[in-house]
Amino acid sequence: MILRRSLTLAAGLALGLSLAGTATADGHDMARYKDRFEPIPSIAPIPADNTQTAVKVELGKMLFFEPRISASGVISCATCHNPALGFADRIPLAVGHLGQVGERNTPTVLNAAFLDAQFWDGRAATLEEQALGPIEAGVEMAMPLDEAVQRLKEFDVYEEMFNTVFGGDDPINADNVANALASFQRTLITPNSPLDRYLAGDEQALSDQQKRGMRSFVDRGCVACHRGPALSDSMFHRIQVPGSTDLGRNLVTGEERDRHAFRTPTLRNVAVTYPYFNNGQVASLDEAIQVMAREMLNLELEEDEVADMVAFMHALTGDMPKFSFPALP
Amino acid sequence: MILRRSLTLAAGLALGLSLAGTATADGHDMARYKDRFEPIPSIAPIPADNTQTAVKVELGKMLFFEPRISASGVISCATCHNPALGFADRIPLAVGHLGQVGERNTPTVLNAAFLDAQFWDGRAATLEEQALGPIEAGVEMAMPLDEAVQRLKEFDVYEEMFNTVFGGDDPINADNVANALASFQRTLITPNSPLDRYLAGDEQALSDQQKRGMRSFVDRGCVACHRGPALSDSMFHRIQVPGSTDLGRNLVTGEERDRHAFRTPTLRNVAVTYPYFNNGQVASLDEAIQVMAREMLNLELEEDEVADMVAFMHALTGDMPKFSFPALP
Repeated sequence: MILRRSLTLAAGLALGLSLAGTATADGHDMARYKDRFEPIPSIAPIPADNTQTAVKVELGKMLFFEPRISASGVISCATCHNPALGFADRIPLAVGHLGQVGERNTPTVLNAAFLDAQFWDGRAATLEEQALGPIEAGVEMAMPLDEAVQRLKEFDVYEEMFNTVFGGDDPINADNVANALASFQRTLITPNSPLDRYLAGDEQALSDQQKRGMRSFVDRGCVACHRGPALSDSMFHRIQVPGSTDLGRNLVTGEERDRHAFRTPTLRNVAVTYPYFNNGQVASLDEAIQVMAREMLNLELEEDEVADMVAFMHALTGDMPKFSFPALP
Repeated sequence: MILRRSLTLAAGLALGLSLAGTATADGHDMARYKDRFEPIPSIAPIPADNTQTAVKVELGKMLFFEPRISASGVISCATCHNPALGFADRIPLAVGHLGQVGERNTPTVLNAAFLDAQFWDGRAATLEEQALGPIEAGVEMAMPLDEAVQRLKEFDVYEEMFNTVFGGDDPINADNVANALASFQRTLITPNSPLDRYLAGDEQALSDQQKRGMRSFVDRGCVACHRGPALSDSMFHRIQVPGSTDLGRNLVTGEERDRHAFRTPTLRNVAVTYPYFNNGQVASLDEAIQVMAREMLNLELEEDEVADMVAFMHALTGDMPKFSFPALP
C-alpha cells in the first residue's frame, strides 16, 4: 500500500495534474483517475456505407434470432450470444452445430460496436466483416451462405423487408445479411454503468472500495490496454493464460510477433460475461485479475487489492439493451 | 355447398336454436356458430398445490431460458419453445442434444395451460408433470435431474429465489423446478385473436371469408375435437398422417385402441406454429386441413372451402406474451 501511494503521488506530480480536484475520504485526487476513462457513448459510430434505419435494425434483430439460417435449424446468433446471459454463453468454450465444442470462449457482442477488431484474433475489422463468419463456421451454425440466403428467400416477410431496407435487384444477399446484423449489433450498448454515472458527476455511484479498485486499475497500468469507451484498445497483446496453447493472432497474420496474441477484450459488463480469457478456463473475476497481473505485469497482487479491483469490475455493468422478441415469419 | 347448407339448417333446427341471431350478408345466423366456441380466458386455471406468485413466475421464466441445466450448456426450454417462433421451433422434428433429431414435432407451449393432457401422447397430465421430461430426455437437454438441480445450487441468485418462493429445508429440488416452470408457462396465453374479438361482439373482427371458414369448421365437425378455450378436447384420436408410423398414445398405455392415437393439438396460433402433425411433415395450413378432412372425416374438400378454413385458422392467432429477457445469474 505504501509503495502504491507513493507511485500514485509521483505519477500525479509528474503529469502536472492538479491535486485540487475531487478528493476521496482518504485524500486521493480522483480527477486524474477519472481522466483516464471515457464514458460509453449513447450511440455507436455508424459507417458511411451502412447507414442505420429503424427497419434495418429490426431486420437485423430478426436475423440475429433466426435459427433457420443454421444447418440444424435451431442455432441462431442468439444461441451463443444469449441476451439472457450478457450476450455471451457463460460456458468455457462455444458449443455449436451437433454439439461440437469450439476452441475459444464466446465474446459478448455488447458494445462490440466500439471495437476496431472483431473476434479474439481480430480476423474481422468491422461488425459487417464479422457477421457472416459464425453462420458459415462448421462448429457454429454450419450453414453455407448461399443456402442461408436461399432459406431467407422462402419467406415473403424477408423479401419485403430486405426490399424496403436495401432495394436493388436481389436484395436478399450475404452482404445485406451482414449489413443488417451489424446494424442491430450497433444498438447493443449498455449505458448507465456505475462507472459512467461516476464519470458524469455522481460521486456516490462508486463505493469507496470501487474507487480504490479504479485507482489500482490505473496505477497498475491495466488502463493502458483496457481503455477507451469499451475499455479495450482493440490491439493485440501476447498472453498465454493457463491451459492455452492457442496461437491467436498468429493464425491470421503468420507473424512471429503475433504468436499467442489476442485482441484486448472489452471490460464493459465483465462481471456478467464470465468465464474469462480466450479459452474460458477462468471462472471468477478474482482469479482473472490475478492471472492478468501475473501474465501482463509480472505482479503478485495482495488479496485486498484484488478485491478492490473485482469491486471496480462490477462497476462496469451497464443497463442491458431492452427489446422485445422479434416475431419471425 | 347445397348439401352443406341443408345440413346446417337441419342441425340448427334440430338443436332448437333461434334463427333471429346475428346474420351475415349471405343470410347465415352466426349466433349458433359462435356458441360452439369459447373465448380464451385471461388467466389459466391454477392448481391448488401450485399457487401462482409474481416471483414464482419470474423464477420459472429464468429456468425456461436457463441453458445450463442442459448437458451441453446451450440448450434451454426456449431453444425448441422459441418465443420468436410461436414458442415452437418451426422445423419438422425437434433437434436437441448434440443435434439429435427427435421423433416428433415440438408442440407450442402457448396456451398449454388450457390442456388436460401434455405431450403428443398425453404421458403427462399437467404442466408440472410435463416440465421435467425435456430436461432429462437424451435427445433434448440430456441432463440428469440431480445434476440440473446441483447446477442451479451453484448460483446464489437461485438459492435466494427458490428460498423466497418455496421455503423449506432444501428448496432447490426437481419438484420445485417443475412448479416454477409450470407457473411461468401458465402465463403464456395469447388473448385478443380475431376469433376472440368476434366472440366478444366485434362483427368486423372476422372477414367474410373467415366467417365462412368458421361455419365450415363447425359444419364439417372439426369443432367436435377442436373445442374449448384452446380448441382442443385434450382427448386422444387415432390418426395416421402421411409418413407417420408413430404408435402415439399406445406407447404410453399399451392399449390396442390407442395405436396411432394422439392428443388433439390446440389450434390457437396454428398459423404461426407450423409445420403440422406429430411428425411435422406438413408445412402448410392448406395441406394440413386437407389431410385432416381425409383422415378424420373421409372427405375431399373443395379448394374454396379449404381456403375459407385457412382464413379462419389465421383468425386464431392472438397477441404473443410480452416479456423481457430474464437476466440469468
